[in-house]
Amino acid sequence: MNTPDTPHAAPPEHLRDQAPGAPIRSGVPEHGRIPKYYAVKARIAGLIDELGDGRTLPTERDLAERYEVARETVRQALRELLLEGRLRRQGRGTVVAGPKLEQPLSLASYTEGVRRQGRTPGRNLISLDRFPCPAALAADIGTPLGEPVWHMERVLLADDERVGLESTYVAVARVPRLDRDFEPDSSFYAYLRDRLGIPFGDADERIETVLATPREALLIGTPPALPMLLIHRLSRDTEGRPLERVRTLYRGDRFSFTTHLASEG
Amino acid sequence: MNTPDTPHAAPPEHLRDQAPGAPIRSGVPEHGRIPKYYAVKARIAGLIDELGDGRTLPTERDLAERYEVARETVRQALRELLLEGRLRRQGRGTVVAGPKLEQPLSLASYTEGVRRQGRTPGRNLISLDRFPCPAALAADIGTPLGEPVWHMERVLLADDERVGLESTYVAVARVPRLDRDFEPDSSFYAYLRDRLGIPFGDADERIETVLATPREALLIGTPPALPMLLIHRLSRDTEGRPLERVRTLYRGDRFSFTTHLASEG
Repeated sequence: MNTPDTPHAAPPEHLRDQAPGAPIRSGVPEHGRIPKYYAVKARIAGLIDELGDGRTLPTERDLAERYEVARETVRQALRELLLEGRLRRQGRGTVVAGPKLEQPLSLASYTEGVRRQGRTPGRNLISLDRFPCPAALAADIGTPLGEPVWHMERVLLADDERVGLESTYVAVARVPRLDRDFEPDSSFYAYLRDRLGIPFGDADERIETVLATPREALLIGTPPALPMLLIHRLSRDTEGRPLERVRTLYRGDRFSFTTHLASEG
Repeated sequence: MNTPDTPHAAPPEHLRDQAPGAPIRSGVPEHGRIPKYYAVKARIAGLIDELGDGRTLPTERDLAERYEVARETVRQALRELLLEGRLRRQGRGTVVAGPKLEQPLSLASYTEGVRRQGRTPGRNLISLDRFPCPAALAADIGTPLGEPVWHMERVLLADDERVGLESTYVAVARVPRLDRDFEPDSSFYAYLRDRLGIPFGDADERIETVLATPREALLIGTPPALPMLLIHRLSRDTEGRPLERVRTLYRGDRFSFTTHLASEG
């Protein structure tokens, strides 16, 4: 056995996977001790790697016995691993989650992005409302104050799993028959392009992390206060006229976004 | 007073700022009741808007008295508002936080991005190590297995506030004098370009949300488990040769990222 002051001692077990060159995500503060739950979390993370996708984790009680800690300590470790998407609940058990979906940041719709990853996209309509355009929205969608606006709210699905929530605001003048001839499970962008001849020109996006509200958590089926990725989009048609404002919330434990950056020169 | 079943009753107070067209972030599940802490959170959010940036929030005790709830309920509401960056701690008080920094997703460095927003960027060196290139890194930075690699870890500052943590991996063969003639507080990209004549060509980035580890929280000065935005970058020079791998963690309560998307057609 190595003791802490043996030269060339093996690193503590929870750090053994921290090869040099691996992203430094260790739990060791420069000064101070490792929180106990974090040491347990690192050991469960090792177990997750051994088990692989879809395999069932031992119960909380078994883990507490195995690591000789209180169940509350195991629970805190599992809570973080669930929030981070390393684990997911399945029925009454906890299983190893697959990798996060990698969605490109592009003008392509959610539908196309999910298909490229070999998943089946879907959308469930939550609400479609019509209301007079308020000041806060007028410039964003290029509609005079008080003119009618659609608000369409849809839950996003990937292989029937609820993964996000999308709110679209668009002038009724642009898409007058949205309530009659748009199939809410399909791509709104394909509808605009193919049915109405409105091609997308460009968009500005802003991405941030927020906590799910209780309503959002209920609609998406996540624990409340799960960290989410929120994307705000303002898009324009090819003539530069404002088209829609979209607010899309993606499960932070299931999504990442990718982009390719080229030099301007 | 309006009762819940009065026709055209005013919305409950915590929803009065939910104009139609405002992003729907209400706390009202389609079925089920509003959690008490969330109703308090919505009222404090209203108070934050009234007060404005930099103003001090009443104490936990005062808020508990004002809203006639337990202090633990107020504490839960404040915890989420702090995690979301609506509030920040200042000394022993809690003040209204300014808006999140909006950093463009671009090849431009952190330094340039922060300057464009009128803030003063800075970086504190945590560590600079040299180690033999492991398998997991070889292809990413275009270095043979076992050849020496730098790992440079720096805390990112904006106006002297710690806002992130950056890990850069680059072959020693590319930047042999990194430990001697690079000023760790300056831009690494400016150093590569101006001192070594290595211009950036392009990069692939992936952005996700993760929880700060205890070590990261300590280095950045955030509460542990604060949701962070994590950006992985692989960059190449103008000849397409791999250059560096970077892992940058930004405070989720202080940063958002923006991008402009143009149609490919």
